[in-house]
Amino acid sequence: MSTHVRIVGTGLIGTSLGLALSAAGFRVSLDDPSPTARRLARDLGAGRLAGDLEPDDVPDVVVVAAPPDVAAAAVVDSLRRWPGAVVTDVASVKQVVLDAVLASGLDASRYVGSHPMAGRERSGAAAARRDLFDGRAWVVVPHERSSDEAVAAVRQLATVVGSAVSVMPAREHDEAVAAVSHVPQVAASVVAACLRDLPEPAVGLAGQGLRDVTRIAASDPRLWTQILAGNAEAVREVLVLVQTQLGEVVAALDSLTSGEGEGALATLSRMLEAGNLGHARIPGKHGAAPTAYAIVSVLVPDQPGSLARLLTDMGDAGINLEDMHLEHGLGQPFGVAYISVVPAAAEPLAEALTARGWQLHD
Amino acid sequence: MSTHVRIVGTGLIGTSLGLALSAAGFRVSLDDPSPTARRLARDLGAGRLAGDLEPDDVPDVVVVAAPPDVAAAAVVDSLRRWPGAVVTDVASVKQVVLDAVLASGLDASRYVGSHPMAGRERSGAAAARRDLFDGRAWVVVPHERSSDEAVAAVRQLATVVGSAVSVMPAREHDEAVAAVSHVPQVAASVVAACLRDLPEPAVGLAGQGLRDVTRIAASDPRLWTQILAGNAEAVREVLVLVQTQLGEVVAALDSLTSGEGEGALATLSRMLEAGNLGHARIPGKHGAAPTAYAIVSVLVPDQPGSLARLLTDMGDAGINLEDMHLEHGLGQPFGVAYISVVPAAAEPLAEALTARGWQLHD
Repeated sequence: MSTHVRIVGTGLIGTSLGLALSAAGFRVSLDDPSPTARRLARDLGAGRLAGDLEPDDVPDVVVVAAPPDVAAAAVVDSLRRWPGAVVTDVASVKQVVLDAVLASGLDASRYVGSHPMAGRERSGAAAARRDLFDGRAWVVVPHERSSDEAVAAVRQLATVVGSAVSVMPAREHDEAVAAVSHVPQVAASVVAACLRDLPEPAVGLAGQGLRDVTRIAASDPRLWTQILAGNAEAVREVLVLVQTQLGEVVAALDSLTSGEGEGALATLSRMLEAGNLGHARIPGKHGAAPTAYAIVSVLVPDQPGSLARLLTDMGDAGINLEDMHLEHGLGQPFGVAYISVVPAAAEPLAEALTARGWQLHD
Repeated sequence: MSTHVRIVGTGLIGTSLGLALSAAGFRVSLDDPSPTARRLARDLGAGRLAGDLEPDDVPDVVVVAAPPDVAAAAVVDSLRRWPGAVVTDVASVKQVVLDAVLASGLDASRYVGSHPMAGRERSGAAAARRDLFDGRAWVVVPHERSSDEAVAAVRQLATVVGSAVSVMPAREHDEAVAAVSHVPQVAASVVAACLRDLPEPAVGLAGQGLRDVTRIAASDPRLWTQILAGNAEAVREVLVLVQTQLGEVVAALDSLTSGEGEGALATLSRMLEAGNLGHARIPGKHGAAPTAYAIVSVLVPDQPGSLARLLTDMGDAGINLEDMHLEHGLGQPFGVAYISVVPAAAEPLAEALTARGWQLHD
């Protein structure tokens, strides 16, 4: 009989997981304190209602997909209720959940944490997508007492829904997400908050830079209060780093305003260069290695079919496209296609395209 | 005879402006301290070299498009050199330039500031585009002594190149860009700087949120040092606001870590809600004239030739691609192509692709 996965919490993540696991042939049962939420998930095809199962049909694996502030209690509850099941949870902070498990006195070997790095700006079962985890990172968070079987079971779930597994201890995970997710959220929110009292013409000057920096400032305050509180120590540590740097910038600006300016430009420049260096470490969408693609720019007639011809020519040359970005001259008969390829392919590509009559654009 | 516009500084902005004004029938002359830069701009079609003109062919309007730290001096120099010309500049900080003009004792009525809100991640004449200003905001910055004629002349330039004019005093402009541009730059740089010393697996957890928040951290440190220094007072004021909010967050996290937590969750939630409110004030893309494309997401097998097939199918359906962005699944056999089209084409495109066997991704 196929593996029975119980999903506790049928919001965006739980329902999406139910859809993906059901499609992969798992038997999925659904539970949620809200009858509406669990029925909606069932109606969407995420699995059967837990209440409709035979009493002896117990889960092999339990996935707690509850909000962060109740995740730890739900994990402990699940370990107690199903003494044979592997239990995982998808909360975005891992040490607090692990601490609760270890403190419970229950068999901790069956618990392994998870953090699927997937989400959407909308929440709830209605926003669920079967492919939510496709190509995303899924951090598997074992601890000293996790059994190999439990780790394997959780890895399997992640793999089956299309995620790329990485394994990391809870503390290390929490410190990582503090820097790559939680502090960026705080920064975006705080920068956006400064716009509240701006005069209307001033916000009218907003450009793409501001839009990018503050996009996640639209995130759900309830959810993020829980996330930040759950990772208080690690977030605090990185925020202090941010404060120190801001303090230096403010001092430099102060000294410029007061007419001294001794070393102020160097301080500003250092901060901006440090930003360059940090930014360069962010991996490309592949997640694998930092974006070290070479870009070949090609002039492309701005009409249907010409890009297809370009890509056919690339395919004929045996070169794989990593990314492409188009730039139109508004009202121009040409656009420029910026083609990202692995560095070794840049020169062969340029040659192949030139040989086929394409004009490269420096 | 058509209006003669002298462009002083043939970098990205100056050259793009030369291309746009030449196309609009203005007589454009070009000057730059670098012979290479001015000749490149000339070769691109941005105008004639100033040195090639008859000595009595003086400009009606001078646009100083020099780097921020020399803009003020170049404006004063231009006012002195051409006593009949209207002079403007495109520096992104306006009060310092105005102060220099007023301090010069020259006829300030002929000076009106400008700030075209346009740019690219690349710089220099080679990156110039005739449509750089199309649909962008262009802030016209008059002062108490600007003549109506000078204001009208500068407005005309902005309008002719397709920008949406807004008018704002220098101080107000500088305070606005501090909040909507300069402080977001500092925040992005500082958040990115915190990534420098992260372990490799930690940066591997980077998601779209971090990428958005830190995109502009890749900006040119030399340029931005000048911009921040030129707007020191206003930037400092907003940064202090940021510091205050961060201080509250750190205190809240502290109190959570120490087990007290009195009011800490409310503090975090308030900060996040303030971010929601500020974010909601940001106008849509392009501010004035939004050209919002619709995005159709399609699953694409990750192998040479499949994208070409997709674009051929689009071309066969008579639908023009506006932009495309690829996202790869980590080690997955497919990626997702995000295809931007004019809104009216989204549904026909989705239908056409589905009919041809493509799987849509949303």
